[in-house]
Amino acid sequence: MAPSLHPIVDNGIVQGDDSFPGGTLQCYCTNNPVQVKVGKNVVQNHACGCTKCWKPQGSLFSIVGAVPRTLVEVTANANKLYVLDASMPVQRNVCKECGVHMFGRIEEDHPFKGFDFVHVELSSDKGWQAPFYASYVSSIIESGFHPAGMDDVRSRLKALGWETFDVTPPQMSDRIATWRAQRSGALPTPLPA
Amino acid sequence: MAPSLHPIVDNGIVQGDDSFPGGTLQCYCTNNPVQVKVGKNVVQNHACGCTKCWKPQGSLFSIVGAVPRTLVEVTANANKLYVLDASMPVQRNVCKECGVHMFGRIEEDHPFKGFDFVHVELSSDKGWQAPFYASYVSSIIESGFHPAGMDDVRSRLKALGWETFDVTPPQMSDRIATWRAQRSGALPTPLPA
Repeated sequence: MAPSLHPIVDNGIVQGDDSFPGGTLQCYCTNNPVQVKVGKNVVQNHACGCTKCWKPQGSLFSIVGAVPRTLVEVTANANKLYVLDASMPVQRNVCKECGVHMFGRIEEDHPFKGFDFVHVELSSDKGWQAPFYASYVSSIIESGFHPAGMDDVRSRLKALGWETFDVTPPQMSDRIATWRAQRSGALPTPLPA
Repeated sequence: MAPSLHPIVDNGIVQGDDSFPGGTLQCYCTNNPVQVKVGKNVVQNHACGCTKCWKPQGSLFSIVGAVPRTLVEVTANANKLYVLDASMPVQRNVCKECGVHMFGRIEEDHPFKGFDFVHVELSSDKGWQAPFYASYVSSIIESGFHPAGMDDVRSRLKALGWETFDVTPPQMSDRIATWRAQRSGALPTPLPA
């Protein structure tokens, strides 16, 4: 049996709603679940194969999107959240009881600072942007996936009409490279017109 | 005027010869040039946008291919070579007079250890494998290329029939991930059948 990419990918992608105003994420806890209000639809929703993103048990990929951090608010049981690894650029805020990652936040200087990363499958609200590409695909091997299965995985992702990347998509990679170039002095800030 | 990708790309790709037995690379020095005999055609010849690979002045990309290190031999003026940065995984052996990189060699544990990286444009012999894809494309920004030009650069590379990657091609990325997984213990060595 083919391994699960992710339940919401395996079961057929449901398109989002452009007018969706955001919704509420909830952790897995039956008692006193952490709730996080996200005041806008996500952008750049995608499958991520990195070893750090939270994914449901048995899935090869995480589904993760971005939203301005100013629109992310913990509305219940904030006391159950802790930062999984404060040394990572993206600080995953995790429920200490069920282990679900409620949002990832960047505090250090970083090309994507200002965005939080969230998993919209934690919401029962309908209309979230559908995932539309896959990043860090080769990284699933680093979580123990046998490399002999990679052709099958990439084929299944491409069958969705998706592009697959072993890092981020080109526009994101360019943003990261620009940020690095401006820090190193290879490019000025702001960029010339 | 569009910036140069690389002279041998700009001027039209010349296909290689499958029976080509290898040849001799020579540095730019008029006097006592370093010569390196490469006893086989290269594989994985490609354009690389990374900030470390040697490239001719004015070019955005390096053209670099791989060959087993046992088939690379310095045949003249070896005393002019030094290792540019011994802390890098790929140690670039550079002519101290003209600055040309004659070969890159890996001494540490690394997924590509055993291969040397060479620039076949340093050879007047004909038949070297033609480059056929581009890696580390977004990295040209880190050398100071304006990000507004990236769409044009990727379009020109794709017009050659090439795929473009911001790291290595998928098969290479998978090899690197497998190597990492085996070092971390996420996968056993050897891999299960």
